[in-house]
Amino acid sequence: MADQSSAVVSDAELREALEVVFRANSALYKERGFQRRLGFGKRPALIVIDLAKAWTLPGHAFSCADMDTIIPANQKLLEAFRARGFPVVFTTTAYDITDGPNSDMGLWGQKIPLETLSADSEWVAIDDRIAPQPGELVIVKKKASAFHGTHLASYLTANRVDTVIVTGVTACACVRHTIEDAIADGFRPIAVREGIGDRIAGAVEWNLFDIDAKFGDVEPLERVLQYLQSNEIG
Amino acid sequence: MADQSSAVVSDAELREALEVVFRANSALYKERGFQRRLGFGKRPALIVIDLAKAWTLPGHAFSCADMDTIIPANQKLLEAFRARGFPVVFTTTAYDITDGPNSDMGLWGQKIPLETLSADSEWVAIDDRIAPQPGELVIVKKKASAFHGTHLASYLTANRVDTVIVTGVTACACVRHTIEDAIADGFRPIAVREGIGDRIAGAVEWNLFDIDAKFGDVEPLERVLQYLQSNEIG
Amino acid sequence: MADQSSAVVSDAELREALEVVFRANSALYKERGFQRRLGFGKRPALIVIDLAKAWTLPGHAFSCADMDTIIPANQKLLEAFRARGFPVVFTTTAYDITDGPNSDMGLWGQKIPLETLSADSEWVAIDDRIAPQPGELVIVKKKASAFHGTHLASYLTANRVDTVIVTGVTACACVRHTIEDAIADGFRPIAVREGIGDRIAGAVEWNLFDIDAKFGDVEPLERVLQYLQSNEIG
Amino acid sequence: MADQSSAVVSDAELREALEVVFRANSALYKERGFQRRLGFGKRPALIVIDLAKAWTLPGHAFSCADMDTIIPANQKLLEAFRARGFPVVFTTTAYDITDGPNSDMGLWGQKIPLETLSADSEWVAIDDRIAPQPGELVIVKKKASAFHGTHLASYLTANRVDTVIVTGVTACACVRHTIEDAIADGFRPIAVREGIGDRIAGAVEWNLFDIDAKFGDVEPLERVLQYLQSNEIG
Repeated sequence: MADQSSAVVSDAELREALEVVFRANSALYKERGFQRRLGFGKRPALIVIDLAKAWTLPGHAFSCADMDTIIPANQKLLEAFRARGFPVVFTTTAYDITDGPNSDMGLWGQKIPLETLSADSEWVAIDDRIAPQPGELVIVKKKASAFHGTHLASYLTANRVDTVIVTGVTACACVRHTIEDAIADGFRPIAVREGIGDRIAGAVEWNLFDIDAKFGDVEPLERVLQYLQSNEIG
Repeated sequence: MADQSSAVVSDAELREALEVVFRANSALYKERGFQRRLGFGKRPALIVIDLAKAWTLPGHAFSCADMDTIIPANQKLLEAFRARGFPVVFTTTAYDITDGPNSDMGLWGQKIPLETLSADSEWVAIDDRIAPQPGELVIVKKKASAFHGTHLASYLTANRVDTVIVTGVTACACVRHTIEDAIADGFRPIAVREGIGDRIAGAVEWNLFDIDAKFGDVEPLERVLQYLQSNEIG
Repeated sequence: MADQSSAVVSDAELREALEVVFRANSALYKERGFQRRLGFGKRPALIVIDLAKAWTLPGHAFSCADMDTIIPANQKLLEAFRARGFPVVFTTTAYDITDGPNSDMGLWGQKIPLETLSADSEWVAIDDRIAPQPGELVIVKKKASAFHGTHLASYLTANRVDTVIVTGVTACACVRHTIEDAIADGFRPIAVREGIGDRIAGAVEWNLFDIDAKFGDVEPLERVLQYLQSNEIG
Repeated sequence: MADQSSAVVSDAELREALEVVFRANSALYKERGFQRRLGFGKRPALIVIDLAKAWTLPGHAFSCADMDTIIPANQKLLEAFRARGFPVVFTTTAYDITDGPNSDMGLWGQKIPLETLSADSEWVAIDDRIAPQPGELVIVKKKASAFHGTHLASYLTANRVDTVIVTGVTACACVRHTIEDAIADGFRPIAVREGIGDRIAGAVEWNLFDIDAKFGDVEPLERVLQYLQSNEIG
C-alpha cells in the first residue's frame, strides 16, 4: 500500500499491529453477537465502484494503489457475471458544473478535490481493462455512495436482485458508504477482498474490518467465484 | 477504550502506532487536496446519535465505553443549543417486530444483535442524563444512518438548517454513516471529538480520521461551543 | 361522495361527464402505448394508508366520505392477508411538535391543517374496525407518501415483497403519492378500487384514472381477493 | 387541449363542468383549512420538467399539447432566472438499456412506452427553443419525479435553494410527482399555470387543482415574473 508511511511505520508493521487489535476486537464482537454472517442470496449484481482512470491510473489526485491486484480480480468477476447474465453496474464520479455559484459538486467539493473530476474529462471514463459492455449500466454519481442520489436501488429492486457483490475504490469512502447503504436498503452486501483498494495505508484494513463486523460479509475472491457458479442462483 | 486488547497491544501503543500512520496519510492527503475544511454554516442543528440506555449503560450487547467523557460533552452541547433555540434531534434504534417472518429488523438483524433492541424495552430510551425536552425531536431509526428511512433530511431542510453538529455512538457505524449521508444531502457535518464513542479499540480514532479526511470536520468541543455563542448564526 | 357539490352538479352528473372524458383519453392512451397492465407479482404486502380515526370518523378536518364501503373492503383484504401471512403495513400521519419554530410538520403544515394531527391524540390511531394485530407494522409518516422519509421501501425489499396492494385515503394525496413512489422504487402497485376514498367530489375518479394510466393497476376488490388465494404466490 | 374528446364532450364543456366541481370542493377545503398559501421563499431554482423533443414536438408517443403557450412561458422564465443568476435545472427522461433482462426502465416500462425514450435518441434532448446554457444542469431521470433517484434534492440543499418554480410536462405524472416530492423534501413548490401541459383533456385542470389544494401554490406566470424581480431574494 505505497511507501508514504515507510519512514516511520512500515506497511508490514502497521498490518501486524492492526491484526492484533482486530483479533481482540473480534473477540468482543463475537461475545456480544456482532460479526454475524449474512450469507449469499439468490440473485446477485456486481457493483464496481469508481474503477475509472482517475482512480486506476497514476498521475491524478484520486489515483489509488494496488491496481495490479484489483484489476485482475475485477476482470475475473466480470467474466463470471457475464457468463451467467447477472446485472453488472459500474459507477464513476463526475461533475457537470465545476465552477461558479451553481456547481453540482455540492459541499463535498469543499472537502475533497472534486474539481478535478469534470464530466468532460477522459479521467472519469471506466478503465479500458474492464470496459463496460452493451447492456451493462454505468451510473455517474455525485456522492460517495453508489445509492445516494441515483436510481441504483430501484434498478436492483425492479430486477429482483437480493445480493450485491461490491468491488473498487476507495475502501474508506465510496466502497464503504455504498455497502452501508446497500444493507440499509435491504440488499446483502458482499465485499470482495482482492477487488477493493484505497490510496492511504491502513484504510483497506480498518474499513474492511468495520464492514465485516457490521454491514456486509468480506469474502475472498475465490469464494465469490464459487458462489457465481452455483446452480442455486439465477 | 476498555481493556479488551491490553493483553497484546495496549491502548496507548495502538494510538501511538495509528498516529504515526495518520501523519503519513495526512501528508499524502494534503498534497492531493483532500482533508479540506468545510467550516461552520449559519444555522446549526444538534444530532445526538443513539445515546440511549442500551449504548450508555453497562450490561447490554450494545454498551459503549467512555461515557464519563461523552455524557458531559453532550450535556454542554445541549445547554448551548437550548440557550439559542436551535433544533435538537436525538436518535435511538428500535424495532417493533423482533421475531417472525415479517420483522422490521431487515437484513441488518442478520449481522448484528438487533433482536435486543425491542421498541417496548426501556433500553432504547434516551439516557436520563441528557433527557430530551419538549420541542426536541426523538427519531426512532431502523438503520445506522439517522438519515436513512427517516424524515431527518426534510426536517432540516424545512427548518433551513445548514450545519449538523454530530455526537454519540458508535463512531464506526451510526455516527459515521450519519455524517456520510449529511454531507451527501448538502448539510455541513461537524463531528465533536469528545462527544463521540465506540465499543472497540481504535474505532474512534480511525473513523474520525476517515471522516475528517473526506466527509466532515472533526472539531474539539471547545471550538464548537465557541461557534454556538457567535452572533453570526441564528 | 357527499353532497357538497350537489347544488350545481350532482355526483351522478359529474361522474357521467368524467366517464365521457376518460373514454376519450383512454383511446388516446391506448393508441400511444400507455395504460398497460403491470399485473400481480409473487409476494404481496398490504399497505393501508391513513385509515386512522381523523380520516375514518366524522368531525375532524381530515374526515373522509364513503367509509361504509371502504372499511368493509379493507376488512376483507386484511382477512385474506392474515390467512396467508403476507406482510401488512398500516400508516398514519402524526406530528410530535405542532407549534414553535422547530416543528416537524415541515412546509406541509403551511398548506394543510397538520396542526390537528398531534401524535398524542387519539385521532391518529388506526380505526378500531381494522385494528392492527401483533406482527403488523404501523408506520407514522410525516408526508403524503408512505415511502417518503420512512423505512417502508427497505422493509419491503428485505422481506422480498414485489407487489403492494394499496388502499385507504386520500386518493388525491397520500394514496396517489404512495403509488407513484412504489412503482418508482420497483414495486408493483395495485390500487383496490373499493378500498380507496377521498373527501371531495371527483377526486377518487380522476386520481384512479391517472394512476391506472401511468403508475399502477386499478383493480376491483374481487380480483385482488382471487389473487390472494392463488397457489403461485408465497 | 386537443380535439380527442370533442366528439362527446367539448373542451369548453369539460372545463365548465370541472370549474363547478372545483368551486364546491374549494368551499369544503377552505372550511376545513386546506388550500393555504405557501408563498415564495428567498432563493428560487427553476425546474423545467421534460421539455425535450419527445414531449414538445409532434409525432412521438409522448407528444403533448399546447406548446405554443408552454414554450414562450418557459422562455420568459428562463430569461428572468438567467438575469438574476439563480439555478436552472432541466430534466429529461431517458434509458440506457431498453431491451433485455437487465433494462434500466424498471417496472415503469411495463406501464408506459419507455422503450421509445432511448438515451441515444435525439428525441430526449431538450427542445432547441429553450436550450440549456453552460452552468445549467440537465438531469436525466428514470422516474416521473425529478427528485426520485437523482441528486436534485442535495443539489438544491447545498445551493441553499428554498423555493422551486416548476414547469413542463406532464401535469398528471412528472410535474405532479416532482411537486409532491418537493414539498415533502422541504422546498416550496410553485407551479406556473401557463408553463405546464399534458396530452389528455382535463389532466392539467384536475392535477393543478389537487396540487394547489395540497402540495404547492399554482400561480400565473405574471406573478412569478414579478417575484423574480424582487429585491428581497438572492
